Amino acid sequence: MKKIYSGKAKDVFEKNENEVVIYFKDDATAGNGAKHAIIEGKGILNNKITDLIFKHLMSKGIETHFISKLSDREQLVKKVTIIPLEVILRNYSAGSFSKRYGVKEGKKFKEPTFEISYKEDALNDPLLNKDHAIAMEIVDEKEYEEIKSKSKEINKILTSLFERAGIILVDFKLEFGKDKEGKIVLADEFSPDNCRLWDSKTLKKLDKDNFRNDLGNLISSYEIVLERLTNVK
Amino acid sequence: MKKIYSGKAKDVFEKNENEVVIYFKDDATAGNGAKHAIIEGKGILNNKITDLIFKHLMSKGIETHFISKLSDREQLVKKVTIIPLEVILRNYSAGSFSKRYGVKEGKKFKEPTFEISYKEDALNDPLLNKDHAIAMEIVDEKEYEEIKSKSKEINKILTSLFERAGIILVDFKLEFGKDKEGKIVLADEFSPDNCRLWDSKTLKKLDKDNFRNDLGNLISSYEIVLERLTNVK
Repeated sequence: MKKIYSGKAKDVFEKNENEVVIYFKDDATAGNGAKHAIIEGKGILNNKITDLIFKHLMSKGIETHFISKLSDREQLVKKVTIIPLEVILRNYSAGSFSKRYGVKEGKKFKEPTFEISYKEDALNDPLLNKDHAIAMEIVDEKEYEEIKSKSKEINKILTSLFERAGIILVDFKLEFGKDKEGKIVLADEFSPDNCRLWDSKTLKKLDKDNFRNDLGNLISSYEIVLERLTNVK
Repeated sequence: MKKIYSGKAKDVFEKNENEVVIYFKDDATAGNGAKHAIIEGKGILNNKITDLIFKHLMSKGIETHFISKLSDREQLVKKVTIIPLEVILRNYSAGSFSKRYGVKEGKKFKEPTFEISYKEDALNDPLLNKDHAIAMEIVDEKEYEEIKSKSKEINKILTSLFERAGIILVDFKLEFGKDKEGKIVLADEFSPDNCRLWDSKTLKKLDKDNFRNDLGNLISSYEIVLERLTNVK
């Protein structure tokens, strides 16, 4: 299969004109690639967690690109055109929010915040607002509102799922794509690489912040996440 | 009178419990204070231009803090509590927009963009979106929408005024304050220090970019702006 995209933690191969295969690598990066390591087994865990999360979202009526998990590191997904926005939902202050606005980590917001960044490594994925995204013709107003409402719905579903797994969903990143009919569907992945997850009791971090900030073993955290999600009733 | 605030280009003195006096200085800064100079006469010109613009806005029904021009460098204004947001309206790409998103200067937007930054020098006035501003309790949703609609109205009035002066209003910054009754009114100033103005025919810059980018004489540009605005029929 022809490789059509090589990302920081995933490669994408063309299966046919309607389907692509996502391959989950063991690469971990932080600070827009400034920090890099190979963490053996991470790709396998992220594939499993994404598989579980996407199936759960689809069972709740969320449309995604997901078709099936093919192997330890591979997923078959619908071919979509990725909308160049990093969509971030936040339930608590942390990470770039805390740094940018001088707000201590762990403040719970009255309402979740929705934010978008322009997915462009060379510009360091700058924050955008709605008017900017429309002025730059990345989305029109209808598409923006659709992405926002889908993201808020996904946040509700996943906050509840993680709560039942004894985990606080602090924040997460989503990417959306347009399929051949122009329909906007959830794409990319959902793994501890792209969200913040804190143990509900101990507040221990179970996500990539362990790598970003050298806090502890990444694999054992990701294994806890997978195990707890698997055991949710 | 007691000085109650010292800004980069203005000082504020308490006149009584309901009124303050704004004093326009000759200080010019750029890059959040990284570049600094004294440009003799700038304060006098900015006071005159702000006087003219605020009176024009008020004649069109926009509520502001402005009471009267007291002297060459002083204005009497209503005492308000400044909302810590820098409101920026853009009709064309330029400045931080162009830099942040890699968009060439001078692209005309189909619709003006409205943007807010958190007015906090120590954090370098970071860009905020609506959800952020509400989560940080800077404004509530109703106040946000009120500031947005007032700003868009001001943009319409001023775009038309500058057009009649042979000047393109590229972008500008506003600040709003709350008066004693909690009413949101336009505050601060409106001068070529805080907006981008291009000659409609030659596209020559008539604003602080002359200082930021060492393009030419600031005072003569500001004098052109004042003269043309004064002569608008």
